[in-house]
Parts: sequence; C-alpha cells; structure tokens
Amino acid sequence: MTIKDFLNTKILEYSSEPIELPFRTWVTSISKGTVLTKFGQIERKGYFIWDGIILCAIEKDGQEKIIDIIMPNNFFCAYNSFISDEPSDIKIYALTNCKIEYMLKRDLQEAYHHSIVANKFARYLKENVLLKKVQREKDFLILTAEESYIQLLNENPEIVQYVPIKKIAQYLGIHPESLSRIRKRLTFLT
Amino acid sequence: MTIKDFLNTKILEYSSEPIELPFRTWVTSISKGTVLTKFGQIERKGYFIWDGIILCAIEKDGQEKIIDIIMPNNFFCAYNSFISDEPSDIKIYALTNCKIEYMLKRDLQEAYHHSIVANKFARYLKENVLLKKVQREKDFLILTAEESYIQLLNENPEIVQYVPIKKIAQYLGIHPESLSRIRKRLTFLT
Repeated sequence: MTIKDFLNTKILEYSSEPIELPFRTWVTSISKGTVLTKFGQIERKGYFIWDGIILCAIEKDGQEKIIDIIMPNNFFCAYNSFISDEPSDIKIYALTNCKIEYMLKRDLQEAYHHSIVANKFARYLKENVLLKKVQREKDFLILTAEESYIQLLNENPEIVQYVPIKKIAQYLGIHPESLSRIRKRLTFLT
Repeated sequence: MTIKDFLNTKILEYSSEPIELPFRTWVTSISKGTVLTKFGQIERKGYFIWDGIILCAIEKDGQEKIIDIIMPNNFFCAYNSFISDEPSDIKIYALTNCKIEYMLKRDLQEAYHHSIVANKFARYLKENVLLKKVQREKDFLILTAEESYIQLLNENPEIVQYVPIKKIAQYLGIHPESLSRIRKRLTFLT
C-alpha cells in the first residue's frame, strides 16, 4: 500500500476519484541494518513502510531498548525530534530489507497552509501515535510481563513470528531470559 | 493563568493585542474527590487547571494506577476517549479542591473550520501530550524505580511535595513499600 492509498482508504474514505497527495513522496529500498535516523540527528522526514520491519530504539549505558516495532502499512519517524526540532534520542533502523516511502517535513508544513487534506492527514497521524502511546503507558502500568507478551501475541502475531526474541524482550522492557521462561510456560500450557 | 493567557503567551507568543479565544470556555470550582470523567464515559470536554491537583487513573482488578498527575497551568482530559469517541478507560478526579476552566469538544471542532488559531491550539496540545507520552514510554523502558523517583523529584518537586506517597508509587508503577525504601535511602544519602 502507498501513502496515497492509505490516505484515500483509511483517512479520507472517499468513494469518488482518489485525492492526490498534497506533498511529494519518494520510494526507496533499504537493506537490513540501514540506519534511517541516527542518535543526535534532527528528524526531517516522515516514513511509511511498504514491506519489511523497522525498529525504533533508545539507548542507556550502551544497552539498547526497543521503543517501537514498525510493520508494513504504518507510518513512523522520530516523533519527538520531528515535533520539537531537537536532536533525536531515538535511532531508527531496518531489521530486515525494507521498501519504504517518505515525505519531507518541510513539504508537509508548506502544505498545511493551503491544503485541508494535509491538515487532516497530520491530525490523523498524531492522534494515531498518541492513542498508541497512551495504550503503551497503560500497559506498562497494569500488565505483568506475561500478560504483555500474550497481548502482543494476540494483537500482533506477526511481530512474534518475525522479530528476534531478544528485540521483543527489549520492546516489552523485560529480560530475554524472563521472556524465554514465559514462552516455555505458555508452550507447556497449550 | 487562563486558557486565553496560555494561548497568547505560550502558544502564539504575539506581542500585539491579545487574541480572543475562538471557542467558549467556562470556569468552575470543584471540591476534592469530584470525578470529572468516569470510567465508561465519552470525553466531551477539554480542561485546563488554574489551581489544585488532578489525577488521571486507570484500574485493573480493582487496583488503581495513576497515569497522570496534573498540576496548575496544564491541559488535561481523557485523550484517548476524546480522540476516538470510545468510552473512557481513564477516570479523572480532583485530588484537592480545584479551580478549572474547560471547553467543549464540539466547540473546538466547530472552530477548526474557520479559525487558524483553533488549529494551532489543537496542534500544540496534541504535540505536547505526545512528547510527554514518548518521554514516559522511554522512562518506563530505561529508568530504575529509584531513577524514576529522582527524576520526578528534580523535574516536578511540587508533585513530590503535595501528592500522597501512595499515589506517586501508583504513578511510577512501583509498590508503595519500594518507594518508601527508596525515599529512606535517599534521605540517608543526603
């Protein structure tokens, strides 16, 4: 799915002629391990993933933690840097070979001035990320490690299928060994 | 500070005549314990706190967890319900007597159609909440309980001063007993 398709089917839900995007986009293929946003870089792009898996990571004492796992047909960028223009403390890189489409922040900002569609698009993206983050905050507060894993298994089985166990543990904020124990227990129960 | 003051000084930073709000607001005093948003209620209002302390809570197995502690001159509402129109799983109530100002969601939505200021206002609010949530997500992933408490102490000393220890523990996602131990150790060190 392209950004244009996404806009027309998921955001606008128009039934007539599809709307053209009010900003430019580019499509590119990147290989596994490619870093799209480095630590300290100011985020100037917004991305949409067609194919592959992207990871958003933070670091503490040289240890990586996964803040987000991006599967196909989703938008991503270092949101805090994108919004604040501050250097990013989030690194974004390709876990697998990926095909991505991206736009420039300055094109999007330019489009705000004259395009209602651009405003609607930006509002949708921010609200969507906000809902996800509120959900994740709640999960951190109320779910046990095992419940978090079961929820991920139910809601995003493809993450559990394609993302290495160590990265999933880093995403759930638990030790890989604890996650292995949980997985063994669940396998035993089923 | 009123919403109008906040808009003029923090969001627009105009130096000329202050801009009027493009939507209606009401000011009211509520007493300690008043529930502004119940579990299951659809959020139709956006709030701004002049004075007092507001808590946003979620519940699991009858246990309360604090998702947000709102101090004066901040906006709040059950954002996920406000955005999605789904019943709220967040309860919002007054920890102390409070003075608050609020607006209606439908007024704000109406103002989007004709007011650039309303659009700028909404964008500011969502971006602001998004930045806070991303920060909190990072904190949950990388900070120890003690580091979380020290950060709260440094960045929001008034929360530590005015909010009961049990509520702070619920906000940090740790047991009240663990927080008491942390506080004792820190007192001993200083």
